[in-house]
Amino acid sequence: MPNLTIIKVGGAIVENEASLNHLLNDFANIPAPKLLVHGGGRSATRFAERLGIKTQMIDGRRVTDTPMLEVVTMVYGGLVNKNIVAALQKRGINALGVTGADLNLILSQKRPIKNGIDYGWVGDVKSGNSATFAKLLNAGIVPVLAPLSHDGEGHILNTNADTIAAQTAIECATAGFNTSLIYCFEKDGVLADANDDSSVIPTIDFSKYLSLKADGIISGGMIPKLDNAFETLRAGVKRVIITNAANIATPDTGTVITL
Amino acid sequence: MPNLTIIKVGGAIVENEASLNHLLNDFANIPAPKLLVHGGGRSATRFAERLGIKTQMIDGRRVTDTPMLEVVTMVYGGLVNKNIVAALQKRGINALGVTGADLNLILSQKRPIKNGIDYGWVGDVKSGNSATFAKLLNAGIVPVLAPLSHDGEGHILNTNADTIAAQTAIECATAGFNTSLIYCFEKDGVLADANDDSSVIPTIDFSKYLSLKADGIISGGMIPKLDNAFETLRAGVKRVIITNAANIATPDTGTVITL
Repeated sequence: MPNLTIIKVGGAIVENEASLNHLLNDFANIPAPKLLVHGGGRSATRFAERLGIKTQMIDGRRVTDTPMLEVVTMVYGGLVNKNIVAALQKRGINALGVTGADLNLILSQKRPIKNGIDYGWVGDVKSGNSATFAKLLNAGIVPVLAPLSHDGEGHILNTNADTIAAQTAIECATAGFNTSLIYCFEKDGVLADANDDSSVIPTIDFSKYLSLKADGIISGGMIPKLDNAFETLRAGVKRVIITNAANIATPDTGTVITL
Repeated sequence: MPNLTIIKVGGAIVENEASLNHLLNDFANIPAPKLLVHGGGRSATRFAERLGIKTQMIDGRRVTDTPMLEVVTMVYGGLVNKNIVAALQKRGINALGVTGADLNLILSQKRPIKNGIDYGWVGDVKSGNSATFAKLLNAGIVPVLAPLSHDGEGHILNTNADTIAAQTAIECATAGFNTSLIYCFEKDGVLADANDDSSVIPTIDFSKYLSLKADGIISGGMIPKLDNAFETLRAGVKRVIITNAANIATPDTGTVITL
Protein backbone atom coordinates (compact mmCIF):
# COMPACT_ATOMS: atom_id res chain seq x y z
CA MET A 1 0.00 0.00 0.00
CA PRO A 2 1.52 3.35 -1.02
CA ASN A 3 1.82 6.00 1.68
CA LEU A 4 -0.45 8.97 1.04
CA THR A 5 -0.23 12.32 2.83
CA ILE A 6 -3.29 14.58 2.98
CA ILE A 7 -2.69 18.11 4.25
CA LYS A 8 -5.64 20.24 5.32
CA VAL A 9 -4.77 23.89 5.77
CA GLY A 10 -7.07 26.65 6.95
CA GLY A 11 -7.75 30.09 5.61
CA ALA A 12 -5.44 32.00 7.96
CA ILE A 13 -2.42 30.19 6.48
CA VAL A 14 -3.37 30.27 2.79
CA GLU A 15 -4.41 33.92 2.84
CA ASN A 16 -1.04 35.17 4.08
CA GLU A 17 1.58 35.17 1.33
CA ALA A 18 4.53 34.35 3.61
CA SER A 19 2.85 31.48 5.47
CA LEU A 20 1.38 30.13 2.21
CA ASN A 21 4.80 30.10 0.54
CA HIS A 22 6.33 28.37 3.56
CA LEU A 23 3.56 25.77 3.49
CA LEU A 24 3.81 25.17 -0.27
CA ASN A 25 7.60 24.78 -0.09
CA ASP A 26 7.17 22.13 2.61
CA PHE A 27 4.26 20.51 0.75
CA ALA A 28 6.33 20.34 -2.45
CA ASN A 29 8.97 18.33 -0.54
CA ILE A 30 6.53 15.71 0.79
CA PRO A 31 6.88 12.51 -1.27
CA ALA A 32 3.94 11.80 -3.61
CA PRO A 33 1.20 10.64 -3.57
CA LYS A 34 -0.16 13.64 -1.71
CA LEU A 35 -3.20 15.90 -1.67
CA LEU A 36 -4.00 19.37 -0.32
CA VAL A 37 -7.35 20.61 1.04
CA HIS A 38 -7.63 24.34 1.69
CA GLY A 39 -10.03 26.81 3.28
CA GLY A 40 -10.49 30.49 2.48
CA GLY A 41 -13.15 31.85 4.82
CA ARG A 42 -11.42 35.13 5.59
CA SER A 43 -11.10 36.03 1.90
CA ALA A 44 -14.75 35.09 1.37
CA THR A 45 -15.79 37.38 4.21
CA ARG A 46 -13.63 40.20 2.85
CA PHE A 47 -14.99 39.93 -0.71
CA ALA A 48 -18.54 39.58 0.60
CA GLU A 49 -18.09 42.80 2.55
CA ARG A 50 -16.74 44.61 -0.54
CA LEU A 51 -19.78 43.37 -2.48
CA GLY A 52 -22.13 44.58 0.24
CA ILE A 53 -23.10 41.03 1.25
CA LYS A 54 -23.48 40.46 4.97
CA THR A 55 -21.65 37.50 6.51
CA GLN A 56 -23.68 35.57 9.07
CA MET A 57 -22.05 32.77 11.07
CA ILE A 58 -23.90 30.26 13.29
CA ASP A 59 -21.69 28.11 15.55
CA GLY A 60 -18.70 29.01 13.39
CA ARG A 61 -20.45 27.92 10.18
CA ARG A 62 -21.24 30.34 7.35
CA VAL A 63 -24.87 30.88 6.40
CA THR A 64 -24.80 30.62 2.59
CA ASP A 65 -27.63 32.34 0.76
CA THR A 66 -27.44 32.66 -3.04
CA PRO A 67 -25.23 35.80 -3.12
CA MET A 68 -22.89 34.21 -0.53
CA LEU A 69 -22.77 30.98 -2.57
CA GLU A 70 -21.52 33.04 -5.53
CA VAL A 71 -18.83 34.54 -3.29
CA VAL A 72 -17.55 31.22 -1.89
CA THR A 73 -17.69 29.58 -5.34
CA MET A 74 -15.55 32.43 -6.69
CA VAL A 75 -13.16 32.73 -3.78
CA TYR A 76 -12.66 29.06 -2.83
CA GLY A 77 -13.00 27.48 -6.28
CA GLY A 78 -11.36 30.32 -8.22
CA LEU A 79 -9.11 32.77 -6.39
CA VAL A 80 -7.60 30.65 -3.61
CA ASN A 81 -7.60 27.33 -5.47
CA LYS A 82 -6.10 28.51 -8.75
CA ASN A 83 -3.41 30.63 -7.09
CA ILE A 84 -2.31 27.57 -5.08
CA VAL A 85 -2.31 25.46 -8.26
CA ALA A 86 -0.15 28.01 -10.12
CA ALA A 87 2.21 28.26 -7.12
CA LEU A 88 2.58 24.46 -6.98
CA GLN A 89 3.13 24.20 -10.74
CA LYS A 90 5.96 26.72 -10.31
CA ARG A 91 7.44 24.25 -7.79
CA GLY A 92 7.22 21.39 -10.29
CA ILE A 93 4.18 19.78 -8.65
CA ASN A 94 1.54 18.52 -11.08
CA ALA A 95 -1.37 20.15 -9.24
CA LEU A 96 -5.01 19.89 -10.30
CA GLY A 97 -7.45 22.22 -8.55
CA VAL A 98 -10.85 20.69 -7.96
CA THR A 99 -14.10 21.04 -6.07
CA GLY A 100 -16.31 18.12 -5.10
CA ALA A 101 -18.34 18.77 -8.26
CA ASP A 102 -15.36 18.07 -10.53
CA LEU A 103 -15.32 14.39 -11.52
CA ASN A 104 -18.12 13.98 -8.97
CA LEU A 105 -15.46 13.71 -6.26
CA ILE A 106 -17.58 14.71 -3.25
CA LEU A 107 -21.37 14.43 -3.24
CA SER A 108 -23.35 16.25 -0.54
CA GLN A 109 -26.89 17.02 0.39
CA LYS A 110 -28.17 20.49 1.17
CA ARG A 111 -28.41 20.78 4.93
CA PRO A 112 -32.06 20.60 5.97
CA ILE A 113 -33.57 23.42 8.03
CA LYS A 114 -33.30 22.34 11.68
CA ASN A 115 -34.58 24.12 14.79
CA GLY A 116 -35.52 27.01 12.51
CA ILE A 117 -31.92 27.44 11.32
CA ASP A 118 -31.49 27.54 7.54
CA TYR A 119 -27.82 27.44 6.54
CA GLY A 120 -28.80 27.87 2.89
CA TRP A 121 -26.49 26.35 0.24
CA VAL A 122 -24.42 24.35 2.74
CA GLY A 123 -23.63 20.73 2.02
CA ASP A 124 -23.41 17.80 4.41
CA VAL A 125 -21.15 15.21 2.79
CA LYS A 126 -22.91 12.03 1.65
CA SER A 127 -20.18 10.15 -0.22
CA GLY A 128 -16.90 10.43 -2.06
CA ASN A 129 -15.51 8.93 -5.24
CA SER A 130 -12.89 6.49 -4.05
CA ALA A 131 -12.01 5.08 -7.50
CA THR A 132 -11.48 8.54 -9.03
CA PHE A 133 -9.27 9.76 -6.18
CA ALA A 134 -7.17 6.61 -6.69
CA LYS A 135 -6.94 7.17 -10.47
CA LEU A 136 -5.76 10.76 -10.01
CA LEU A 137 -3.16 9.84 -7.39
CA ASN A 138 -1.92 6.81 -9.36
CA ALA A 139 -1.51 9.07 -12.42
CA GLY A 140 0.94 11.24 -10.46
CA ILE A 141 -1.55 14.08 -10.10
CA VAL A 142 -1.63 16.18 -6.91
CA PRO A 143 -5.26 17.19 -6.26
CA VAL A 144 -5.89 20.54 -4.56
CA LEU A 145 -9.40 20.54 -3.10
CA ALA A 146 -11.51 23.64 -2.45
CA PRO A 147 -14.17 23.36 0.29
CA LEU A 148 -17.06 23.05 -2.17
CA SER A 149 -19.12 20.01 -3.12
CA HIS A 150 -22.24 19.44 -5.22
CA ASP A 151 -25.63 17.85 -4.80
CA GLY A 152 -25.79 16.01 -8.13
CA GLU A 153 -28.73 18.26 -9.06
CA GLY A 154 -26.62 21.02 -10.54
CA HIS A 155 -25.91 23.01 -7.37
CA ILE A 156 -22.57 23.82 -5.79
CA LEU A 157 -22.70 23.53 -1.99
CA ASN A 158 -20.47 25.30 0.54
CA THR A 159 -18.84 22.50 2.55
CA ASN A 160 -16.63 22.53 5.64
CA ALA A 161 -12.98 22.01 4.66
CA ASP A 162 -12.25 19.70 7.63
CA THR A 163 -15.11 17.47 6.52
CA ILE A 164 -13.93 17.50 2.88
CA ALA A 165 -10.47 16.45 4.12
CA ALA A 166 -11.90 13.70 6.32
CA GLN A 167 -14.10 12.26 3.55
CA THR A 168 -11.22 12.44 1.07
CA ALA A 169 -8.96 10.58 3.53
CA ILE A 170 -11.61 7.89 4.02
CA GLU A 171 -12.04 7.45 0.23
CA CYS A 172 -8.29 7.17 -0.29
CA ALA A 173 -7.95 4.67 2.58
CA THR A 174 -10.80 2.66 1.06
CA ALA A 175 -8.90 2.68 -2.25
CA GLY A 176 -5.94 1.07 -0.51
CA PHE A 177 -3.70 4.01 0.36
CA ASN A 178 -1.84 3.98 3.68
CA THR A 179 -3.30 7.38 4.48
CA SER A 180 -2.03 10.07 6.87
CA LEU A 181 -4.30 13.06 7.42
CA ILE A 182 -2.60 16.17 8.77
CA TYR A 183 -4.79 19.04 9.99
CA CYS A 184 -2.62 22.09 10.25
CA PHE A 185 -3.32 25.46 11.77
CA GLU A 186 -1.62 28.25 13.75
CA LYS A 187 -0.96 26.28 16.98
CA ASP A 188 1.60 23.51 17.50
CA GLY A 189 -1.11 20.93 18.27
CA VAL A 190 -3.91 20.33 20.76
CA LEU A 191 -2.95 22.33 23.85
CA ALA A 192 -3.49 21.24 27.48
CA ASP A 193 -3.53 24.94 28.38
CA ALA A 194 -4.95 27.27 25.71
CA ASN A 195 -2.69 30.07 27.01
CA ASP A 196 0.50 28.02 26.86
CA ASP A 197 1.69 27.26 23.32
CA SER A 198 4.23 24.77 24.64
CA SER A 199 1.58 22.58 26.32
CA VAL A 200 1.06 20.35 23.26
CA ILE A 201 -0.55 16.99 24.13
CA PRO A 202 1.61 14.50 22.15
CA THR A 203 -1.04 11.78 21.69
CA ILE A 204 -4.79 11.56 22.24
CA ASP A 205 -6.67 8.26 22.03
CA PHE A 206 -10.45 8.02 22.20
CA SER A 207 -10.72 7.48 25.96
CA LYS A 208 -8.32 10.35 26.63
CA TYR A 209 -10.41 12.52 24.26
CA LEU A 210 -13.53 11.79 26.26
CA SER A 211 -11.86 12.74 29.55
CA LEU A 212 -10.24 15.89 28.07
CA LYS A 213 -13.65 16.90 26.74
CA ALA A 214 -15.31 16.19 30.12
CA ASP A 215 -12.65 18.37 31.82
CA GLY A 216 -13.29 21.21 29.35
CA ILE A 217 -9.69 21.09 28.08
CA ILE A 218 -10.95 20.23 24.60
CA SER A 219 -13.80 22.55 23.63
CA GLY A 220 -15.25 24.72 20.86
CA GLY A 221 -14.05 24.19 17.30
CA MET A 222 -11.62 21.46 18.36
CA ILE A 223 -14.51 19.08 19.16
CA PRO A 224 -15.82 18.63 15.56
CA LYS A 225 -12.20 18.44 14.33
CA LEU A 226 -11.47 15.56 16.73
CA ASP A 227 -14.82 13.88 16.06
CA ASN A 228 -13.84 13.97 12.36
CA ALA A 229 -10.42 12.57 13.20
CA PHE A 230 -11.76 9.56 15.11
CA GLU A 231 -14.31 8.90 12.36
CA THR A 232 -11.56 8.73 9.74
CA LEU A 233 -9.43 6.41 11.91
CA ARG A 234 -12.39 4.08 12.42
CA ALA A 235 -12.89 4.09 8.62
CA GLY A 236 -9.33 2.94 7.92
CA VAL A 237 -7.20 6.10 7.84
CA LYS A 238 -3.86 5.16 9.42
CA ARG A 239 -2.72 8.35 11.08
CA VAL A 240 -4.28 11.68 12.02
CA ILE A 241 -2.09 14.52 13.25
CA ILE A 242 -3.02 18.04 14.35
CA THR A 243 -0.05 20.36 14.07
CA ASN A 244 1.32 23.76 13.17
CA ALA A 245 1.28 24.59 9.44
CA ALA A 246 4.94 25.55 9.85
CA ASN A 247 5.75 21.98 10.93
CA ILE A 248 4.27 19.79 8.20
CA ALA A 249 7.77 18.67 7.24
CA THR A 250 8.03 17.19 10.79
CA PRO A 251 4.38 16.47 11.67
CA ASP A 252 5.25 14.22 14.62
CA THR A 253 5.90 17.40 16.60
CA GLY A 254 2.12 17.92 16.82
CA THR A 255 -0.69 15.93 18.44
CA VAL A 256 -1.11 12.38 17.11
CA ILE A 257 -4.68 11.08 17.27
CA THR A 258 -5.10 7.33 17.74
CA LEU A 259 -8.11 5.11 18.32
CA MET B 1 -8.48 8.28 -34.75
CA PRO B 2 -11.39 9.05 -32.41
CA ASN B 3 -13.58 12.02 -33.32
CA LEU B 4 -13.28 14.85 -30.80
CA THR B 5 -15.63 17.84 -30.58
CA ILE B 6 -14.43 21.06 -28.97
CA ILE B 7 -17.11 23.66 -28.28
CA LYS B 8 -16.09 27.23 -27.52
CA VAL B 9 -18.91 29.33 -26.12
CA GLY B 10 -18.80 33.00 -25.23
CA GLY B 11 -19.91 34.88 -22.18
CA ALA B 12 -23.27 36.06 -23.53
CA ILE B 13 -24.44 32.43 -23.81
CA VAL B 14 -23.08 31.07 -20.51
CA GLU B 15 -24.27 34.01 -18.45
CA ASN B 16 -27.91 33.60 -19.43
CA GLU B 17 -29.54 30.71 -17.62
CA ALA B 18 -31.89 29.74 -20.47
CA SER B 19 -29.27 29.80 -23.23
CA LEU B 20 -26.74 28.04 -20.97
CA ASN B 21 -29.21 25.24 -20.21
CA HIS B 22 -30.02 24.87 -23.90
CA LEU B 23 -26.32 24.71 -24.72
CA LEU B 24 -25.51 22.20 -21.96
CA ASN B 25 -28.40 19.95 -22.99
CA ASP B 26 -27.06 19.90 -26.55
CA PHE B 27 -23.47 19.49 -25.35
CA ALA B 28 -24.48 16.55 -23.14
CA ASN B 29 -25.84 14.80 -26.27
CA ILE B 30 -22.65 15.17 -28.32
CA PRO B 31 -20.78 11.84 -28.36
CA ALA B 32 -17.60 11.77 -26.24
CA PRO B 33 -14.72 12.57 -26.40
CA LYS B 34 -15.63 16.25 -26.13
CA LEU B 35 -14.43 19.41 -24.44
CA LEU B 36 -15.95 22.79 -23.58
CA VAL B 37 -14.17 26.17 -23.45
CA HIS B 38 -16.13 29.06 -21.97
CA GLY B 39 -15.85 32.81 -21.56
CA GLY B 40 -17.36 35.00 -18.88
CA GLY B 41 -16.38 38.58 -19.60
CA ARG B 42 -19.76 40.13 -18.86
CA SER B 43 -19.85 38.59 -15.36
CA ALA B 44 -16.29 39.75 -14.76
CA THR B 45 -17.22 43.29 -15.73
CA ARG B 46 -20.29 43.18 -13.50
CA PHE B 47 -18.41 41.90 -10.43
CA ALA B 48 -15.56 44.34 -11.07
CA GLU B 49 -18.08 47.18 -11.07
CA ARG B 50 -19.63 45.96 -7.81
CA LEU B 51 -16.12 45.83 -6.29
CA GLY B 52 -15.37 49.37 -7.50
CA ILE B 53 -12.79 48.14 -10.03
CA LYS B 54 -12.83 49.94 -13.37
CA THR B 55 -12.94 47.84 -16.54
CA GLN B 56 -10.69 49.09 -19.31
CA MET B 57 -10.79 47.44 -22.75
CA ILE B 58 -8.30 48.04 -25.57
CA ASP B 59 -9.29 46.62 -29.01
CA GLY B 60 -11.82 44.38 -27.25
CA ARG B 61 -9.22 42.96 -24.85
CA ARG B 62 -9.42 43.46 -21.08
CA VAL B 63 -6.62 45.33 -19.35
CA THR B 64 -5.85 43.13 -16.35
CA ASP B 65 -4.18 44.84 -13.41
CA THR B 66 -3.85 42.93 -10.11
CA PRO B 67 -7.37 43.68 -8.80
CA MET B 68 -8.86 42.71 -12.20
CA LEU B 69 -6.78 39.50 -12.23
CA GLU B 70 -8.41 38.57 -8.92
CA VAL B 71 -11.82 39.22 -10.46
CA VAL B 72 -11.27 37.11 -13.59
CA THR B 73 -9.63 34.31 -11.58
CA MET B 74 -12.70 34.26 -9.33
CA VAL B 75 -15.33 34.65 -12.03
CA TYR B 76 -13.87 32.51 -14.84
CA GLY B 77 -12.08 29.86 -12.72
CA GLY B 78 -14.66 29.75 -9.93
CA LEU B 79 -18.17 31.04 -10.55
CA VAL B 80 -18.71 30.31 -14.26
CA ASN B 81 -16.53 27.19 -14.46
CA LYS B 82 -17.83 25.38 -11.37
CA ASN B 83 -21.48 26.12 -12.13
CA ILE B 84 -21.03 24.61 -15.60
CA VAL B 85 -19.29 21.59 -14.07
CA ALA B 86 -22.11 21.03 -11.57
CA ALA B 87 -24.70 21.46 -14.34
CA LEU B 88 -22.92 18.89 -16.54
CA GLN B 89 -22.56 16.43 -13.64
CA LYS B 90 -26.33 16.70 -13.19
CA ARG B 91 -26.61 15.63 -16.84
CA GLY B 92 -24.41 12.58 -16.23
CA ILE B 93 -21.32 14.11 -17.89
CA ASN B 94 -18.04 13.49 -16.07
CA ALA B 95 -16.92 17.12 -16.23
CA LEU B 96 -13.64 18.42 -14.84
CA GLY B 97 -13.27 22.19 -14.62
CA VAL B 98 -9.76 23.42 -15.31
CA THR B 99 -7.65 26.45 -16.12
CA GLY B 100 -4.40 26.32 -18.07
CA ALA B 101 -2.55 26.20 -14.73
CA ASP B 102 -4.18 22.90 -13.75
CA LEU B 103 -1.99 19.99 -14.88
CA ASN B 104 0.07 22.62 -16.72
CA LEU B 105 -2.43 22.39 -19.58
CA ILE B 106 -1.80 25.81 -21.17
CA LEU B 107 1.42 27.74 -20.64
CA SER B 108 1.54 31.43 -21.57
CA GLN B 109 3.81 34.39 -21.30
CA LYS B 110 2.78 37.73 -19.90
CA ARG B 111 2.14 40.04 -22.84
CA PRO B 112 5.03 42.51 -23.14
CA ILE B 113 4.30 46.24 -23.09
CA LYS B 114 4.04 47.33 -26.74
CA ASN B 115 3.53 50.81 -28.17
CA GLY B 116 3.10 51.99 -24.59
CA ILE B 117 0.14 49.64 -24.00
CA ASP B 118 0.42 47.47 -20.87
CA TYR B 119 -2.31 44.84 -20.75
CA GLY B 120 -1.12 43.73 -17.30
CA TRP B 121 -1.68 40.07 -16.34
CA VAL B 122 -2.69 38.96 -19.83
CA GLY B 123 -1.18 35.80 -21.28
CA ASP B 124 -0.15 35.06 -24.86
CA VAL B 125 -0.26 31.29 -25.27
CA LYS B 126 3.15 29.63 -25.69
CA SER B 127 2.31 25.92 -25.62
CA GLY B 128 -0.19 23.31 -24.51
CA ASN B 129 0.10 19.90 -22.91
CA SER B 130 -0.91 17.49 -25.67
CA ALA B 131 -0.21 14.29 -23.69
CA THR B 132 -2.29 15.39 -20.69
CA PHE B 133 -5.27 16.45 -22.83
CA ALA B 134 -5.13 12.99 -24.43
CA LYS B 135 -4.96 11.24 -21.05
CA LEU B 136 -7.99 13.14 -19.74
CA LEU B 137 -10.06 12.46 -22.88
CA ASN B 138 -9.02 8.81 -23.05
CA ALA B 139 -10.07 8.41 -19.39
CA GLY B 140 -13.62 9.48 -20.32
CA ILE B 141 -13.24 12.88 -18.67
CA VAL B 142 -14.91 15.95 -20.21
CA PRO B 143 -12.65 18.96 -19.57
CA VAL B 144 -14.31 22.36 -19.10
CA LEU B 145 -11.72 25.08 -19.69
CA ALA B 146 -11.85 28.58 -18.21
CA PRO B 147 -10.02 31.32 -20.16
CA LEU B 148 -7.06 31.45 -17.78
CA SER B 149 -3.53 30.13 -18.21
CA HIS B 150 -0.31 30.38 -16.21
CA ASP B 151 3.27 31.49 -16.80
CA GLY B 152 5.01 28.63 -14.96
CA GLU B 153 6.31 31.21 -12.47
CA GLY B 154 3.31 31.04 -10.17
CA HIS B 155 1.07 33.58 -11.88
CA ILE B 156 -2.37 33.10 -13.36
CA LEU B 157 -2.79 34.97 -16.65
CA ASN B 158 -6.02 36.21 -18.22
CA THR B 159 -6.15 34.57 -21.66
CA ASN B 160 -8.51 34.98 -24.60
CA ALA B 161 -11.01 32.11 -24.73
CA ASP B 162 -10.86 31.78 -28.55
CA THR B 163 -7.08 31.35 -28.28
CA ILE B 164 -7.41 28.80 -25.45
CA ALA B 165 -9.87 26.86 -27.64
CA ALA B 166 -7.55 27.04 -30.69
CA GLN B 167 -4.47 25.88 -28.74
CA THR B 168 -6.47 23.09 -27.10
CA ALA B 169 -7.71 21.94 -30.53
CA ILE B 170 -4.14 21.93 -31.87
CA GLU B 171 -2.89 19.89 -28.88
CA CYS B 172 -5.68 17.35 -29.26
CA ALA B 173 -5.07 17.07 -33.02
CA THR B 174 -1.36 16.57 -32.30
CA ALA B 175 -2.32 13.78 -29.88
CA GLY B 176 -4.14 12.01 -32.72
CA PHE B 177 -7.76 13.10 -32.28
CA ASN B 178 -9.84 13.80 -35.40
CA THR B 179 -10.71 17.23 -34.00
CA SER B 180 -13.64 19.51 -34.80
CA LEU B 181 -13.57 22.99 -33.28
CA ILE B 182 -16.92 24.75 -33.07
CA TYR B 183 -16.94 28.44 -32.19
CA CYS B 184 -20.45 29.34 -31.19
CA PHE B 185 -22.02 32.69 -30.54
CA GLU B 186 -25.30 34.59 -31.03
CA LYS B 187 -25.30 34.65 -34.88
CA ASP B 188 -25.94 31.74 -37.23
CA GLY B 189 -22.44 31.99 -38.74
CA VAL B 190 -20.29 34.46 -40.62
CA LEU B 191 -22.72 36.85 -42.32
CA ALA B 192 -22.33 38.34 -45.80
CA ASP B 193 -24.51 41.22 -44.58
CA ALA B 194 -24.18 42.10 -40.90
CA ASN B 195 -27.79 43.34 -40.91
CA ASP B 196 -29.22 40.16 -42.43
CA ASP B 197 -29.13 37.16 -40.09
CA SER B 198 -30.05 34.85 -42.97
CA SER B 199 -26.98 35.80 -45.04
CA VAL B 200 -24.77 33.05 -43.57
CA ILE B 201 -21.75 32.22 -45.77
CA PRO B 202 -21.76 28.38 -45.84
CA THR B 203 -18.01 27.87 -46.41
CA ILE B 204 -14.94 30.09 -46.31
CA ASP B 205 -11.56 28.92 -47.53
CA PHE B 206 -8.39 30.95 -47.13
CA SER B 207 -8.53 32.73 -50.50
CA LYS B 208 -12.21 33.59 -49.96
CA TYR B 209 -11.29 34.89 -46.49
CA LEU B 210 -8.70 37.24 -47.99
CA SER B 211 -11.18 38.62 -50.51
CA LEU B 212 -13.99 38.98 -47.91
CA LYS B 213 -11.55 40.82 -45.67
CA ALA B 214 -10.41 43.07 -48.54
CA ASP B 215 -14.07 43.85 -49.29
CA GLY B 216 -14.70 44.75 -45.63
CA ILE B 217 -17.32 42.00 -45.28
CA ILE B 218 -15.21 40.33 -42.61
CA SER B 219 -14.01 42.89 -40.06
CA GLY B 220 -13.56 43.65 -36.38
CA GLY B 221 -13.62 40.77 -33.91
CA MET B 222 -14.24 38.22 -36.66
CA ILE B 223 -10.71 38.71 -38.04
CA PRO B 224 -8.76 37.28 -35.07
CA LYS B 225 -11.38 34.48 -34.79
CA LEU B 226 -10.79 33.49 -38.44
CA ASP B 227 -7.01 33.90 -38.16
CA ASN B 228 -7.20 31.48 -35.21
CA ALA B 229 -9.35 29.11 -37.25
CA PHE B 230 -6.92 28.93 -40.19
CA GLU B 231 -4.00 28.47 -37.80
CA THR B 232 -5.67 25.45 -36.18
CA LEU B 233 -6.49 23.93 -39.60
CA ARG B 234 -2.88 24.34 -40.73
CA ALA B 235 -1.80 22.63 -37.47
CA GLY B 236 -3.93 19.53 -38.13
CA VAL B 237 -7.40 20.33 -36.78
CA LYS B 238 -9.87 18.71 -39.19
CA ARG B 239 -12.86 21.00 -39.10
CA VAL B 240 -13.63 24.51 -37.83
CA ILE B 241 -17.20 25.77 -37.76
CA ILE B 242 -18.59 29.13 -36.66
CA THR B 243 -22.25 28.81 -35.72
CA ASN B 244 -25.08 29.78 -33.43
CA ALA B 245 -24.86 28.37 -29.89
CA ALA B 246 -28.44 27.16 -30.36
CA ASN B 247 -27.30 24.98 -33.31
CA ILE B 248 -24.40 22.95 -31.93
CA ALA B 249 -26.44 19.78 -32.35
CA THR B 250 -26.46 20.57 -36.12
CA PRO B 251 -23.25 22.58 -36.58
CA ASP B 252 -23.21 22.22 -40.37
CA THR B 253 -25.87 24.95 -40.45
CA GLY B 254 -23.14 27.49 -39.69
CA THR B 255 -20.04 28.63 -41.58
CA VAL B 256 -17.49 25.87 -42.28
CA ILE B 257 -13.90 27.12 -42.46
CA THR B 258 -11.55 25.18 -44.74
CA LEU B 259 -7.96 25.70 -45.89
